[in-house]
Amino acid sequence: MTDWERALIRHVGVGVKTSKALFEKIEVKDWDERPIPGKRTVGEVAVHLAVLLEADLLLAEGATAEAMQAFYAEPVTRDQLSERIDRAFRIYQEKLTTGFVARPTYWGVDDSMNGWAIEATVHLYHHRSQLFDYLNILGYELEISLFE
Amino acid sequence: MTDWERALIRHVGVGVKTSKALFEKIEVKDWDERPIPGKRTVGEVAVHLAVLLEADLLLAEGATAEAMQAFYAEPVTRDQLSERIDRAFRIYQEKLTTGFVARPTYWGVDDSMNGWAIEATVHLYHHRSQLFDYLNILGYELEISLFE
Repeated sequence: MTDWERALIRHVGVGVKTSKALFEKIEVKDWDERPIPGKRTVGEVAVHLAVLLEADLLLAEGATAEAMQAFYAEPVTRDQLSERIDRAFRIYQEKLTTGFVARPTYWGVDDSMNGWAIEATVHLYHHRSQLFDYLNILGYELEISLFE
Repeated sequence: MTDWERALIRHVGVGVKTSKALFEKIEVKDWDERPIPGKRTVGEVAVHLAVLLEADLLLAEGATAEAMQAFYAEPVTRDQLSERIDRAFRIYQEKLTTGFVARPTYWGVDDSMNGWAIEATVHLYHHRSQLFDYLNILGYELEISLFE
């Protein structure tokens, strides 16, 4: 493993671990809440966060709009969040360390394999932050260190 | 420049450009608003976002608590946000491409140079997301694409 790969896995790992800590806090009654009007619900953000490492690397390999629609159509329940983000992180690590061929996305964005590895990482931190904000808006007491 | 460096600069660049687009939207009357009780104000998040690429790489080089206190004590006004984040991004690119010696932080966290380059990047996306949420809570109409 190269030093760059190790560095990414460390920080994606922190993102995954802390996302799981947030998932555990979500109360059933808040799953369909929409703390910011017009934006995703709590459940929608949590599911998106749980699968995005996997989804983004499918996009990176040129998955079609239909393939992505099928991927997103698979339901993820509150109980499956933790297992799904673990799976996504496993796939991320495998693809990062063994390499893959990056292809333009179905809407035409072109990036390198390394670019996609970073894109997926910042995407994770973006929605982890959103979920954290949501739970704070809803009045949760979160004693979670988001960074080391 | 290596492919990893190019990939990071591309995605930090997207984060900086879109942060500046958010900075431009902030209305004077909202600077001291605190959209999530107990959390930073709009102005505090914006200033933190504008300087963090610079701050994190000072920490990465082992800056003392006193040095960091002095760094953060320098006031940043609403009008200076854009210029400050540009400066921070310039420093980030210089340090990333010429390299630096990573030292343990004053509270004892140890990471590699590459690890710090990634940490600063995800930190940027974390607070960009927070500022985006804040402005949405305050009712701003933001037609900004946060990702490519």
